[in-house]
Order: sequence, then C-alpha cells, then structure tokens
Amino acid sequence: MSTDKDKQASNQMWGGRFGSGPDAIMEEINASIDFDRKLYAQDIRGSLAHAAMLAKTGIITAEDCDKISHGLNTILSEIEDGKFVFSRRLEDIHMNIESRLADLIGPAAGRLHTARSRNDQVALDFRLWVKEELGRTEASLTRLISAFLDKAEEHADTVMPGFTHLQSAQPVTFGHHCMAYVEMFGRDRERVRHAIEHMDESPIGAAALAGTGFPIDRAMTAAALGFREPTRNSIDTVSDRDFALEFLSLSAICAMHLSRLAEEIVIWSTPQFGFVRLSDAFSTGSSIMPQKKNPDAAELVRAKTGRINGSLIALLTIMKGLPLAYSKDMQEDKEQVFDAAESLELSLAAMTGMVRDMEIRADRMRAAAGSGFSTATDLADWLVREAGLPFREAHHVTGRAVAMAEERGCELAELPLADLQSINPAITEGIYDVLTVDASVASRQSYGGTAPAQVRSQIARWRAWT
Amino acid sequence: MSTDKDKQASNQMWGGRFGSGPDAIMEEINASIDFDRKLYAQDIRGSLAHAAMLAKTGIITAEDCDKISHGLNTILSEIEDGKFVFSRRLEDIHMNIESRLADLIGPAAGRLHTARSRNDQVALDFRLWVKEELGRTEASLTRLISAFLDKAEEHADTVMPGFTHLQSAQPVTFGHHCMAYVEMFGRDRERVRHAIEHMDESPIGAAALAGTGFPIDRAMTAAALGFREPTRNSIDTVSDRDFALEFLSLSAICAMHLSRLAEEIVIWSTPQFGFVRLSDAFSTGSSIMPQKKNPDAAELVRAKTGRINGSLIALLTIMKGLPLAYSKDMQEDKEQVFDAAESLELSLAAMTGMVRDMEIRADRMRAAAGSGFSTATDLADWLVREAGLPFREAHHVTGRAVAMAEERGCELAELPLADLQSINPAITEGIYDVLTVDASVASRQSYGGTAPAQVRSQIARWRAWT
Amino acid sequence: MSTDKDKQASNQMWGGRFGSGPDAIMEEINASIDFDRKLYAQDIRGSLAHAAMLAKTGIITAEDCDKISHGLNTILSEIEDGKFVFSRRLEDIHMNIESRLADLIGPAAGRLHTARSRNDQVALDFRLWVKEELGRTEASLTRLISAFLDKAEEHADTVMPGFTHLQSAQPVTFGHHCMAYVEMFGRDRERVRHAIEHMDESPIGAAALAGTGFPIDRAMTAAALGFREPTRNSIDTVSDRDFALEFLSLSAICAMHLSRLAEEIVIWSTPQFGFVRLSDAFSTGSSIMPQKKNPDAAELVRAKTGRINGSLIALLTIMKGLPLAYSKDMQEDKEQVFDAAESLELSLAAMTGMVRDMEIRADRMRAAAGSGFSTATDLADWLVREAGLPFREAHHVTGRAVAMAEERGCELAELPLADLQSINPAITEGIYDVLTVDASVASRQSYGGTAPAQVRSQIARWRAWT
Amino acid sequence: MSTDKDKQASNQMWGGRFGSGPDAIMEEINASIDFDRKLYAQDIRGSLAHAAMLAKTGIITAEDCDKISHGLNTILSEIEDGKFVFSRRLEDIHMNIESRLADLIGPAAGRLHTARSRNDQVALDFRLWVKEELGRTEASLTRLISAFLDKAEEHADTVMPGFTHLQSAQPVTFGHHCMAYVEMFGRDRERVRHAIEHMDESPIGAAALAGTGFPIDRAMTAAALGFREPTRNSIDTVSDRDFALEFLSLSAICAMHLSRLAEEIVIWSTPQFGFVRLSDAFSTGSSIMPQKKNPDAAELVRAKTGRINGSLIALLTIMKGLPLAYSKDMQEDKEQVFDAAESLELSLAAMTGMVRDMEIRADRMRAAAGSGFSTATDLADWLVREAGLPFREAHHVTGRAVAMAEERGCELAELPLADLQSINPAITEGIYDVLTVDASVASRQSYGGTAPAQVRSQIARWRAWT
Repeated sequence: MSTDKDKQASNQMWGGRFGSGPDAIMEEINASIDFDRKLYAQDIRGSLAHAAMLAKTGIITAEDCDKISHGLNTILSEIEDGKFVFSRRLEDIHMNIESRLADLIGPAAGRLHTARSRNDQVALDFRLWVKEELGRTEASLTRLISAFLDKAEEHADTVMPGFTHLQSAQPVTFGHHCMAYVEMFGRDRERVRHAIEHMDESPIGAAALAGTGFPIDRAMTAAALGFREPTRNSIDTVSDRDFALEFLSLSAICAMHLSRLAEEIVIWSTPQFGFVRLSDAFSTGSSIMPQKKNPDAAELVRAKTGRINGSLIALLTIMKGLPLAYSKDMQEDKEQVFDAAESLELSLAAMTGMVRDMEIRADRMRAAAGSGFSTATDLADWLVREAGLPFREAHHVTGRAVAMAEERGCELAELPLADLQSINPAITEGIYDVLTVDASVASRQSYGGTAPAQVRSQIARWRAWT
Repeated sequence: MSTDKDKQASNQMWGGRFGSGPDAIMEEINASIDFDRKLYAQDIRGSLAHAAMLAKTGIITAEDCDKISHGLNTILSEIEDGKFVFSRRLEDIHMNIESRLADLIGPAAGRLHTARSRNDQVALDFRLWVKEELGRTEASLTRLISAFLDKAEEHADTVMPGFTHLQSAQPVTFGHHCMAYVEMFGRDRERVRHAIEHMDESPIGAAALAGTGFPIDRAMTAAALGFREPTRNSIDTVSDRDFALEFLSLSAICAMHLSRLAEEIVIWSTPQFGFVRLSDAFSTGSSIMPQKKNPDAAELVRAKTGRINGSLIALLTIMKGLPLAYSKDMQEDKEQVFDAAESLELSLAAMTGMVRDMEIRADRMRAAAGSGFSTATDLADWLVREAGLPFREAHHVTGRAVAMAEERGCELAELPLADLQSINPAITEGIYDVLTVDASVASRQSYGGTAPAQVRSQIARWRAWT
Repeated sequence: MSTDKDKQASNQMWGGRFGSGPDAIMEEINASIDFDRKLYAQDIRGSLAHAAMLAKTGIITAEDCDKISHGLNTILSEIEDGKFVFSRRLEDIHMNIESRLADLIGPAAGRLHTARSRNDQVALDFRLWVKEELGRTEASLTRLISAFLDKAEEHADTVMPGFTHLQSAQPVTFGHHCMAYVEMFGRDRERVRHAIEHMDESPIGAAALAGTGFPIDRAMTAAALGFREPTRNSIDTVSDRDFALEFLSLSAICAMHLSRLAEEIVIWSTPQFGFVRLSDAFSTGSSIMPQKKNPDAAELVRAKTGRINGSLIALLTIMKGLPLAYSKDMQEDKEQVFDAAESLELSLAAMTGMVRDMEIRADRMRAAAGSGFSTATDLADWLVREAGLPFREAHHVTGRAVAMAEERGCELAELPLADLQSINPAITEGIYDVLTVDASVASRQSYGGTAPAQVRSQIARWRAWT
Repeated sequence: MSTDKDKQASNQMWGGRFGSGPDAIMEEINASIDFDRKLYAQDIRGSLAHAAMLAKTGIITAEDCDKISHGLNTILSEIEDGKFVFSRRLEDIHMNIESRLADLIGPAAGRLHTARSRNDQVALDFRLWVKEELGRTEASLTRLISAFLDKAEEHADTVMPGFTHLQSAQPVTFGHHCMAYVEMFGRDRERVRHAIEHMDESPIGAAALAGTGFPIDRAMTAAALGFREPTRNSIDTVSDRDFALEFLSLSAICAMHLSRLAEEIVIWSTPQFGFVRLSDAFSTGSSIMPQKKNPDAAELVRAKTGRINGSLIALLTIMKGLPLAYSKDMQEDKEQVFDAAESLELSLAAMTGMVRDMEIRADRMRAAAGSGFSTATDLADWLVREAGLPFREAHHVTGRAVAMAEERGCELAELPLADLQSINPAITEGIYDVLTVDASVASRQSYGGTAPAQVRSQIARWRAWT
C-alpha cells in the first residue's frame, strides 16, 4: 500500500499528472485505442475477408470461419449500438476486437490471427479508411464544382473587376471567376482519383514483414475488399505510409485553393467592397449591430489550411529516416490523417454552402469594374489592332488618355473624341466600342478568355464531364 | 416536416454527413466547446477577478459581485464533479458558463460582462493556460535534468565511444554524454523561463479591441491573476498570439532534442550495439520471443517531434496575413497548443522514466570504445606535444601506425614499441600512456572536456543551479 | 581517355548532369564552399584568437603566432578585395583558408590546427555569424519601431475603423493601431535579446567532440571573441544547433507579424479602402495606367513569411533524430539560416521604408470609421453607465436603434432624440456625446485603450525605452 | 551630392546594408533576375512559339516574325556562351531578353508582346521548366530502380535480419529488402507521371488574366510547345501554382523514402552492424584513421529531406489566402522549386551511386539473421500447421523453447529434439526444417513474401515494366 509520503515522493518524481509513475506514462503514450477505434468497421471487414480466405484455403475449418464471422458481426453491432466497452489496457482496436471475439466464441478466435500480424492488419485497416475517405473527398469536390458551375451559369454576364495585386486590372465576368475555381477543384479531384489508383493494393497477407508459409490466397482477400490487386512486397507493405502522405499533400493543395476563396469572401464581404452578402447560415451576427455579418465560416476555412499543412509536415517528419520495416513511430500516422480529413471535409461542405447561398451584388461589382480606367488595355489593344501602332507606342498614347481622364475626374469612355484625337489622330469613333466594361469583356474571345460565350462553352464542357 | 425525398435530395446536396444542411455544417465548424472547455478553470478565475474589480471600482455593486462569485464557484464545482452539461449550441466555454450563471443567479449575471468582451476574455483564458503550461514544462525539464545528473554522476568514469557520423571517433565517458543532454535541456528551460517573462501581461480590460469607457482598474486584475502588469495596447492584446507561437517553437526545439535521445536509445538497444537495456516499463515484448524488447516509448517520443513541428507550422500558417484585430481564424490556436503541450509533457515524462530506469551495459560500451583505433588522435596529439612534430606530419605517422595495427588485426596499444619506432624514431615508451581508452579520456582536461574530473565539476555546477 | 561511347554509357547511367559519375555527384553534394564562404571573416577572427591563445599558453611559439596572424590578415584582405581564389576541391571555407595559409607561411600553418578540429571551428564560425545577425536584427527592429512611433505620434488623433473579421467594429485611432505593431515588434526584439543571451558561449576548444589534452585556455578565446563564457560540454558544443533554430523561430514569429502588416497595406491600398497611398519607391506602376500602384513590396514581404517558415521547418527536420555528436546532416544548417536572415532583414528594411513613406488618407479613414453604426457599443455602454440598464437589455435597445437608423439610411447620431426615446425613455440629450467617432475614441481611457491621451502616454513610454 | 553626414544619417535610418535607402531595398526585394535567369531557354522557346503563332494568325507580319526569331536565337547563343549581360535594373528574365531584343532588331521587338502579358509569360516559362524537371526526375527514378533491381537479383538469396523497431524480427533476403525500395520509388515515379498529366496544359494566351481580343490560336502554341492542350480558364492560368506544389509534394514523399534508405546505410555502415561497406566515392575518410569511412553522402541525402519539406511548406504558406489573380507573392515560387529540384536530383543520383557501389557483407548479414531466435515465428507456425495447435498455444510453446535456448546460450536449431519434446510432445524431427534462416526464408512463399522465388518473380515483373 502506498502511503501519502510515497505519493508525495512519486509526485515529485513524475509530476502531478503521472503520479503513479512509469505505468501511467507508458499507457498514455502507447495506447492508440482513443483514436484507432475509428477503424473498427475496417478492422472487422478485413477480418471477415481474412477468415473467409483461411477457410477457402483450408487453413481453418468452415466451422471456425462461421463462428468467427458470426462473432465479428456481433461485435460490429455492439460497437454501432454503443454497447461495446473499449479498454485502454488492450491498447488498440485490433486487440479490443480480438479479445471480445475470444469472449464470444472461445478458442476459434485464436485461429483468426493465423497467417497475419498486427503489422499487416493495421496497414489494411488504415488503407481501407483512407481509400474510403478519398472517395468522400471526390464526392465533396464534385458538389463544390457543381455549386460553382451553377453560379457561373447564372453570372456568365455579370461584370466584375479582374484583380492583380488586389488592384483592379481588367474587367472580367463573375462567371469566369467562378470557373477559375472549377479548374482548381477539378485538378484537386484529378489528384484524388490518381491517389486512389496509386494505393489500390491490398496489404493483408504481408504478415509481420516477410510474408508467410501458410498457403494463403492474397488475390482472394484483395478482391473481397475491393482492391485492384495485392501488394507486391511484404516489407514495403508494412513499412510505408506514402498513401497517407499523398492524401495529406493533395489535401494541403486543395486547402490552399479553399483559403484563396475564403480570403476573397472575407474581402468581398467588407462594406468597402460589398461584392457579396453571405447567408445567415454561414456568418454570425452581433446582438448589438443587427446589420453586421461576420464571415466566420470563411475565416475558419482559411484557418484550416494551417491545420492541414501542419498534419502534412507532421507525418513527413515522423516518417523521416525510419529504417524498414515497421517502427512504432508509425502509430502517429492516424491522428494526422483523421484530423486533416475532418478539416477538409468540413471546409468543402462549408464552402459549397457559402457559394450556393451567397448573394451576388452585381451592381457593386459592375460599378467597381467600371472605375479606375480598367479598360485602358482595351484602348491600347485597339490602337495596335485598328490603328497599327506598335505595342509600346500604343501604351504611351493610352497612358496620356488615362492621365487626361484622371485629371478631369471622368472615365475613359467619357472623354470626347476630339480630345482623344488630340492625343493621337488615328483614334476614331470605333474606340468607344471597346471602352465600356461590357465591350471589353465581350471582346476577350480567345480560348479560355472572359467573354461570356467562352465562359458558357467551358461550363457546358464541365457539365458534360461532371 | 421533411420527407424522405427531401432528405435524399439534401443528402445529395450536402453529402451524407451533413444531411441536415448548412446548420449542421456551421455548428460543426464554428463551435469550439469541444476543445475550449479545457479552459474552464481559467475562465472562472478570470471572471472572479473581473467581478471583484468591477465591484471595487463601483461599476457593479458588492451584492452583485457576491452573487456572481458564488455562482461561478458553484459552476466550478459542477464542472469538476462532472455534473455540468456542456452545450454545443452555446458554442464556447464562455457562453456555456455565462448561460449557466444566468440560470443560477439571474440578472446579476448580465453585469459580469460589463467592460469586457469575448475577445479579451478568450485572450485571458488562453494566456493563463499557456503560462501555467510553461510552468509545468519548466518543472518537467528540471526532473529530466535531474535524472541525467544522477546518471552522469554514476557513470562519470564509464567509457563509451564518442561518435561522429555514427562512427566511433574518440572515447568519451557516458557521464559526459549525459551532461550534453543536461546542457540541451538546460537551454530549453531557459527558453521556457524567458517565454514566461515575455507573456506575463494581463489582457483583461482590452475589451473588444479599443479599451473601454468604464473606469476599470487593469492593474488590479493583473495582480489578482498573477501577471506582472497589464498589456499596453488593447488592439495588440486581442490580435496577437505570439505567446502561443513562442510556446510551440520552444516545444519544437525541445522535442528535437528529445528525438535525438530517442534515436540513440533505439540504436543503443539493438543487439548489435547493446549499450543499454530498457526497463520493461518503457518497452514492449513479444509473446513469442521473451528476450525481445521493443523500444516503443522511445520511438513514440521520436515521432512526437513531427507532431509538435506540425502544430508549430499550423499556427504560424493560421496567423499569416491576418489583418488586425481579432479574426475567427484565431479560434484555431488552441487545439494546436493543447496537442503540442500534451505531446511534450508526455515525452518529457517518458524520457525521464527511461533515463532513470535504463540499465547501462558498461562492458559493451568499453569494448566498443576500445576498438576501431579510437585513440589515434591521442597518438597524433602525443607526437605534436611530446615529440614536437608538426600537426600534419603527426597525422601522417599516426595513419601509418593505424594501418600497421589494422593489418595485424590488433589495437594500437598492442603494437610493440620497436615497430612504432620503425615508423618514427621519436616515439618512446610514454606513448602507451595515451593509447588506452582510460588514458585518452583522463587526458582531456580542457574546460568542458570528457575527463571525469571535468564531468564531475560540471555536475556539481548544475546541482548548485537546479 | 574516354570515348564518346563511354560518355554515352556514363550519361545513361548517371543522367546528363552527372555524366562524369560518382566524383561529380560527391563534389556537388559534399562541398559547402559555395555557401560557407560567407563565414570567412568569422573563420579568420576565430583563428586569430585561437592562435593568440596557443601562443599565450605556450602550445605554439610567439613567432609562429605572428606568422599565422600575418598570414590570416593577408587572406582577409585578399578575400575582401575579391582576389582570393576559392576552390571547390578544398570543400569548405576552413580548408580554403588553411590551404592558402600554408602557401603563404609554410609549416607554421600546420600548427594553427593544434587543439582544435573542424567540428568546433565550424560551430564557432556559425555561432559568431548568428550572434552578429541577431545584433543586426535587433537594430532593424529598433528602426521599424521608431518609424511606427513617429507615425503614431503624428496620428494619435486620426480616427479609423477598428476591425474585427475585417468588418468595422469600433472606432480607434491610427496612432493606436500603429502602437499595436510597436508592441509586437517590441516583443520580437525581446526574443532577439534573450536569444543572444542563450547562445553567448564560445565553442572553440571543444575540439572534435571530447575536448583536448593540450593545456588550452578557453576563457581567453571566449573573451577575445566577445562571448560571455566558454561552453560547458564539448559533446553538446559540436552536436547542437539550437541557437540556429531559436534564430529561425523568432524570425518566423517576426515574419508573421510583418505579414499581417503587409496584408493590411495591400488591403488599405485598394481603391475600395483607400486608407493609404504608398510611395513610388515601394510600389510598381503600369506604363498604361499611370494612376495604378501595385503594392509589390508589401506582397513580397508577405510572401517571405512562407520562406522563413520553410527554413525553420527544414532545420527542425534536419536535426530530428540525429545521434550525437556531429553528423554531416548538420552541414545543411547554414543555408537555411542565411536565407532566412536575408529575407528577414530585407523585409524589416522594406517595411520600415513603407511605414515611413506612406501617405495616410485621414479623410477616408474617418469616413469609414463613421459609417456602419460603429458607435453602437458606445450607445449600449452609455445605457448601462448612465441609465443603469443591465447589459443585455442595453444591447437590445441598441439593436432597435441601429435597425431604425438603417431603415432611414442615416447614422446613429442623426436619429432625433424623440425617436430614440420612443425606444427607451431613459435616453437623454447626453447620448449624443458618445455617438460621434471622436467622442467614442476619446472615451476609451482605460489603460491601453484607444483614447489619444492613452496612446500618447504609451508613445512616451516607448520613446524612453528605445 | 550626398555628404558624409547625409550618408551617416541614411545609414542610421536604413541600416548599413541599405545605406542608399528605399531604392536599394526595393531593387533587392523586387528583382528576380538572380534566380529566374534559369528560365532563359524556356522564355525564348515560348517567345518563338508565340511569334510564329502571331504571324500565322496575321497579327504580326512574317517579316517581323523572322526578325524576332532571328533575334531570339541570337540571344539564346549569347546566354549560352556566357556573353549576355544580365541587368538587375531590368528586374527579370523577360525584360532582360525583351530589352536585348529591342537592341538587336528595333521596333519589331515591341510587337512580340502583342496579345500576351508578363503574367502568362512567366506562367508558361515556369510550367515548361517544371515539366522538364518532372521528366528528369522520372529518368532519375528509373535509374535508381534499375540499380536496386540489379542488387536484388544479385542478392535474391542473401539472408539478412528483417527488422521491426530496429530489432531483428524474422529473416528476410537482402534482395527482398531491395525490392521494397523498388516499390517505393516505383510509386514515386507513378506520382511523377500523373503530375505531368495534371499540368500538361499551355498557359500562353491567358494574357494578363482575362484573355485577349486578338484572334490568337492557343492550340497552335500549345502544340508547338509540346503541351496536350491549352488551359481552359485565363484567370486560373495566371493565378494558380498547384503544379509547382504537386512537384514539391511528390518530391517530399520521395525524399522521405530516400531518407529511410540513407538512415539504413548510416546504421549498416557502423562497425556494430557492419552490413555494408561504402565505396570511397561516397564516403569521406580521415587522414588519421585510414580505415574509417564516414557515410557523408548518405547523411547529406537524409538532410535534404528537411530542405525539401521546407520548400513545400514555404510555397504552401506563400499561396495561402492569396486573392485571384496574380499577386507579387507568387514571384517567390521559383526559388523553392529550383532548390528542391536540385536537392532531389542530387539525392537520387547519389543514392543510385551508393546502391550500385556498395559492398554487401553477406556473412555479417547472415550471422545477424541467425542470432536472436529470429525463427521463433517459424517454430510457432509449424506448431499450428503441422501439430494443429491453436495459434495462442503455439506461441506459448515457442516462448518456452526460446527461453530454454536463451538460458543455454544457444540458438533454437541447436536445441536437441528430446528437449523440445519435453516442452511439447507433438514436436517431431521435421521441426529442424524450419529453424534455420534459409528454411525460414524459403518457406515464405506467399505472394510478395521473402522467399527467393517470390523475389525473383517480382524482379522479372519490374524488369518487364521498366
């Protein structure tokens, strides 16, 4: 029995939190059940497939297989009904389930672990989970793309300022701007699809690290679990986690795209810009200033970028310099992936909602597009195209016209022809056809350009794909 | 009432997980109560100090203050007894407590929020928590340093190979090696102490961002909460989180130090090295190979480095480019700090335990130190010092002696004098005094060198400090 | 002689770039002279101090010491005059200088390396450089703080909107906003000062890793090189690089602060905000739109954050899990630090320039501050303070007043008293004293608040410190 | 003329390095020519294709096109012959070339810039470079895979210990271990190939951000430059850099794989392990200890992981939260990619060399594989398979046999049959067939297992692919 004095000494030695010493510390650092319980369905699915294969190849009897399957399905129900008691002492999800199976079906439970090891079992469970998550990510991206396609279609003619350096540069359409995001999230989706392709191999049967002498049929388990084929090298199978890193890196790139959209929403929602009004669902108000809407959801999406970058760096660092095959360091792979997946899924859903719900203030966008001499390039291009001026001279003439307009406090289209001709006599009435934002936008008919016809054609193309 | 068809449509629109649409998404992304409940004690402490100050300055009555204090203490007990019902709808710990206070004491609860805002309240709670955590980290580092000092004392004369490039270079003592870690963790502790100094200012009273017109006394709350002084600028107070980043960066550096120790433990525990034997408490065995001990705890400590680096990068990225003052992005600060703190505390405790418990296999260390011509530099130095050879020539002579020993399959000290003299006639009997590992180690008397006397003197110095 | 066919085969084997095979690869990966030549002055300074110490302690003769000193000074001149020929074959700055010294003074050169090793030599050179860079950073921060103090003084009364979520929340002064940055950069400077304190120890004399048997005087070299004292453990001395990591982490935090300022400058420079006009020196124009000013320098400063974070993560990752003592991995420490130092120095200088030069458009700031019912909190606080309403009821009344003003398209101060009284009869004429932005700002007299008097008092305090 | 006093004041104001003030700072931070000159070939290639298209579509004359082409080819030669004078005042590679073109061919030079902008020009140059680098990476990976295939073939029967937790677990073959790396680098190569597919679209013609009104033919330039097709959205084209991020993230994953190999080489090269001997080409020696070989190249490869992770994080951070379209922050993309590409290429080449050249010490590997009861699992599996014991009981029996062997200081295969039978009578003579390392290895015939036949079959499969 430990006296108070012992306790005091122990507290001093280990710090208050770990008063009970090494065992408490080891349990805390070693047990993974608090997070890997998330893999229960994958673990059971894997075991069912493994048992069926063991029976088919005669390694266990059909009877044992039935018992095992029955037991595992019982456990599945127990977990989903919240009746399963997880134990930290049993460390991880595999041992928790294995131990419960022994309670339920007795010695047959012991045969399930024939020709496999925790090393290939955890590799399987985690890979199954990541593959499913990639599928969910693909679907989420498709929903976001779809929201943007709808918005783009609705606003194929809505003029807004095209920015560089957050300074108004040339008029574009809001539909065109939306389609830029469609391209980004479309590439993100391609990366997801290829990531699935890269990791679509079944780990089970690699055993501890060397394969096994039992006459197992890995093609059978691979097929049962929906994998393209079994992995080809048992050491690699239990050693590597590049599928998790690929998931994290494509998530980080996608989160970067989301952060740019989030930033735009934050800026566009200011009274100064006033380009969009967020729906109540995705903003928070103030009890005192009922007109105020804080773009909380957009800010949180922007912040998630940091979180996902953090998970990526964490796992890259964890895996650095680990000798083959399995090292315990690799237990730290799951929380990073779970956290990033949660953040990404949530961010994609929130953004899809914000894009769908947000009110576009076309008048404010048009007003901003029309100010600041945003059609100056159109004027210069006209001089090159119609009046045959060399590019640099055209720029010079345009600069003088802008200076004149600025001095008078008017826009370029408001300068009288005579005054324009005083700068360069080659200018004709036709110039006014390019000086309005609508004319400017309509003229940019090059492939991928901002002209509404171009935008509509790209929307149609994406609709056909999606 | 939503029909099944509605549900199906909604599922398609938002994905299974967020079937109920925007509200479910917003609650999920916006609510922080799942993690900021950890700040309950700090929140209540801050409110008690704030209420006392409001009463003292006449902003609220003594009666209201009593009610508030009584109510807050009741809530504290409810939380600590596990009876408090946290609500996600109330978003965060502040609103959860404020709402419960209103239940308990009625309108007086509304007066507690006078002259403050959630912005300075959360800044206070979080800063209090980080300051306490820094105190815990300091204590944990002191325990680890102390474990190393004990080990160093015990092994001030234990010879081991000093490695560069993981190749044996010169003999050192294990005590000296331990003291290298004392220096590292000692610097980590200095960083902790200075971090406390940098952030020891009270945020409360900054209000939303501009300060307040109520005649508050910030010096009083600062003193009551144990801060050196109040912060000097209300905008900065609610905007910045560099105290959290400083905590994360010193944690990352400390974790790097821990990872080096962990790597050494992993390598030293291999049968090939066999320098240490880990205690059962910090390793795991195999049911099948009872002699096997996996250094799980060391591997997990090594992995935590990645995790802490991830948190650091996450928060640095989150804070990048946020305009002043508060933005919702900053809500993502806490989980990173909590997770890193948990990882660091656990790693420090585990390492303290491992260092205390590990068995040093002095025979294996000595054998390894004595092989590989590790005293070659001593031979060269002797030639410079005693025989007056220029440095580069001494190296040349030494190289020839080593080559001779290698050819004969013996160590340097086993070469006969005559043979050494055949390489260079200036060599005398005295040479054998420096060719043994003990002689080599004893000779390195320079300040900070590996000679046992030096090591003992540094131990004494640290004992006096710690 | 290698034939074309040989070359082709070699190309196929090694890839075009490394056609000549292993030697070319090894030289490329191994040589550090391309970047560590930056340390020439530190290397020579260290050698001069080492030589003087060797002479003083009788390890070398005074004559040799003179020759060495003369030779080193010659080399210093050669390098500074651009006449020194660096050789990649000699790998690093140490060997380049050592080899040239041998050319210049013959055998005495060989004696300089007595009782030291490349391991403590490089640790010394790099530490000297980082210490000097910390000094430069401190000075740069002082310049930036000074620029902000001047701006704050000039604009202690200039009203601007205080933002949360980039939405206007309460009026503040621009001087107060400037002082928020003074606090941030002030804390950055404290971190710099403490970093110097943490690393102010001389590595020289640690030798390869174990110290030395020569009777050296480390206190003497430490003093000569301006260090507080010599390091206390020779293994730690050649193994650790936490001083470099501490430099990188404080740089990352400072860069984060700079990125926030940069973001504000970018947003404030948009026509939509129009709060500041950048000087031509720190923006770029367009040949075609003479009125356009792109905030290039601010954007680049914002981007440098990423770069510095990258260097921090790089070195943290490099150092992860390295067994003691020196490993070649550590050669990768320098470029990260050099690059981050360059980025930080440049960013600080650019920001100092931008802050000094930027034109504040006080009219635009004031107009923005006055719109959006930004004094709503002042109204609520008045109701609590003067009319004794509980906080939550005051909020409710305020919400109704704001709604009324919004409906009428006017600001709060423009609502007639009778109408305000129709919402709550306790409202009196006195209410108008708090509804203007000037009154609002002036009222926030709490310590650290935005009232001009408070701001001026803080400016004075900082002036006294700086 | 600035006096000394002016200079002093200026120095004080800007710091020594930027004595000349704002202009020096701006040039330093803004100019990119120091690094983007690396893109000269891509810039010229792009311009040649653009000019040809402008002529074909009648936007410029055939004559101008000829002049431009001639001029550009002259510049290409000048640069490759080292005769081109780069100017920092001209900021970047585009302006340097454009300006020189004007010198060479006069006004026609001005026409080249018709219907394009620096924004799509830099996007093109950089994308071309990255695409080429991806091609080089693919080839480097193929060379490394090929080196491993050769080594695997040679050592398909060489037995070594298979490690988990760096503890010997089960015997494997070195060929099998090599093939694990083939799988990893094979997946890296798949990622490279898909990255090319994702980015194989031509940016040129997106112009500033909105497309252009000139009747350009983007399909023509895309084809001329070897792209699959033109990009589909002009805003996205000049805004995004995910192709660079995808390059960096696949590089980081590949570098992680390399770091694991590097770590193994470092550990295997210690005298304690002694599994491999590095060639002189990839190690460094000691003048004093001729037998010593430091694995410098492996350590440097291990360190490069940190460097590449740093570049990845840098660019992810830089791109975070940038509003569309182009912002100057994006100028910081190139150095990160160039540096990572250099590091990766060098690491791949060095590893290919090390793998090819390293001497495998099969005797040391076999001895290590045979010790530590590494066939204990084989014993247990035999008991399950041949004696019908349940898995858990088989483990128990094995544990007792290992304990007996350990006590006697012998290996499992050296225990007499009678003694084994005393533990469990079901054991027969046949047991000795699985207790040797060769038998163990040969038995693991499961798909992907370590049996030499399996390894050879996988080698053949890869040979057919590569």
